[in-house]
Amino acid sequence: MSDVSEYSPPIGHLVDLPERWRKSGHRGGVMWFTGLSGSGKSTLALALEKQLFEDGFHTFVLDGDNLRHGLNSDLGFSPEDRGENIRRVGEVAALFASTGLIVLTAFISPYRTDRDLARAAAGDGFQEVYLDPGLDVCERRDPKGLYRKARAGEIPEFTGISAPYESPTAPEIVVDTGAVTVEESVKLLRDHVARIFSVGETA
Amino acid sequence: MSDVSEYSPPIGHLVDLPERWRKSGHRGGVMWFTGLSGSGKSTLALALEKQLFEDGFHTFVLDGDNLRHGLNSDLGFSPEDRGENIRRVGEVAALFASTGLIVLTAFISPYRTDRDLARAAAGDGFQEVYLDPGLDVCERRDPKGLYRKARAGEIPEFTGISAPYESPTAPEIVVDTGAVTVEESVKLLRDHVARIFSVGETA
Repeated sequence: MSDVSEYSPPIGHLVDLPERWRKSGHRGGVMWFTGLSGSGKSTLALALEKQLFEDGFHTFVLDGDNLRHGLNSDLGFSPEDRGENIRRVGEVAALFASTGLIVLTAFISPYRTDRDLARAAAGDGFQEVYLDPGLDVCERRDPKGLYRKARAGEIPEFTGISAPYESPTAPEIVVDTGAVTVEESVKLLRDHVARIFSVGETA
Repeated sequence: MSDVSEYSPPIGHLVDLPERWRKSGHRGGVMWFTGLSGSGKSTLALALEKQLFEDGFHTFVLDGDNLRHGLNSDLGFSPEDRGENIRRVGEVAALFASTGLIVLTAFISPYRTDRDLARAAAGDGFQEVYLDPGLDVCERRDPKGLYRKARAGEIPEFTGISAPYESPTAPEIVVDTGAVTVEESVKLLRDHVARIFSVGETA
């Protein structure tokens, strides 16, 4: 019979965050991509993930593909459910960051209050990445044919057409993905990550 | 102006899971601790996390402390909310595993259907860890004074007293934490992790 008292749990984790950072060689944090549909969020997040992985960072993309089918499969597309979707993304991103990972999130996240909640959840390591090629470029790209449908009235409340997009007021980084190639954008973002998430840096 | 078409996102991640495993030196997965209150779930998960971290594994504990205040702060303690709490834990654990982490979850999770959902979400790397010192040991420990309150009728539907605990039918590992010390239990679990999550292993 083991000592009854020794199975009382300690308060909090026995491995602290700075220990995790020292081991992985970088701080954890959140690169929160925001912008209109077609602005390049998923493209850049996935390309940056690959680049950072090759550079030796621990990183992971959270996007609609891996959240809508699992954690957020109970949510629809009502305004309330969209808000709850982004709230959960923010909380999960913060959890990932607290393991020492650099998590890259790719969601339109059109409302300032939602993004501010995500920033509050993640704390210091939160970086708002605003992709801003302008509506005309996004609509010309229209990779999923959504703008066409929205203009035809087939999709109600489509961000940028019939629903608002609230531009970030103080994003940590802005990329005009109408003027900058994917390769150049990845280089820019990679330099930003290397600087902001270095272990020596005090964010 | 960048090529309009190059910002169409690729299908899926550009870094696949085996690449992540090779880099970290181990597979990702879920060690799902289940058992009565006082059975040692948090104690062992936190102690194992520390040991695995020192051994070079990428690992993280998900427990009530880091989920109830964030992601699951909208949930109460009704049967529906408890179910939803465990569903989200299972989905988040699966997400963590898909980054290559070994996630250790510490929740009573008394219902088989809930644990089976978590297993389904995580797939191959799911390991059910049943801590079974028996009710009498848990009640004698009573680290939070909850059994006393439950016996006094101050807590309704308390698992093991006035609500059921459905024992795992085929757990991957069982530890009698009434007979085995914390140190011995950690050694046992560490050996299990090293064997199951080795890169060479085909789970």
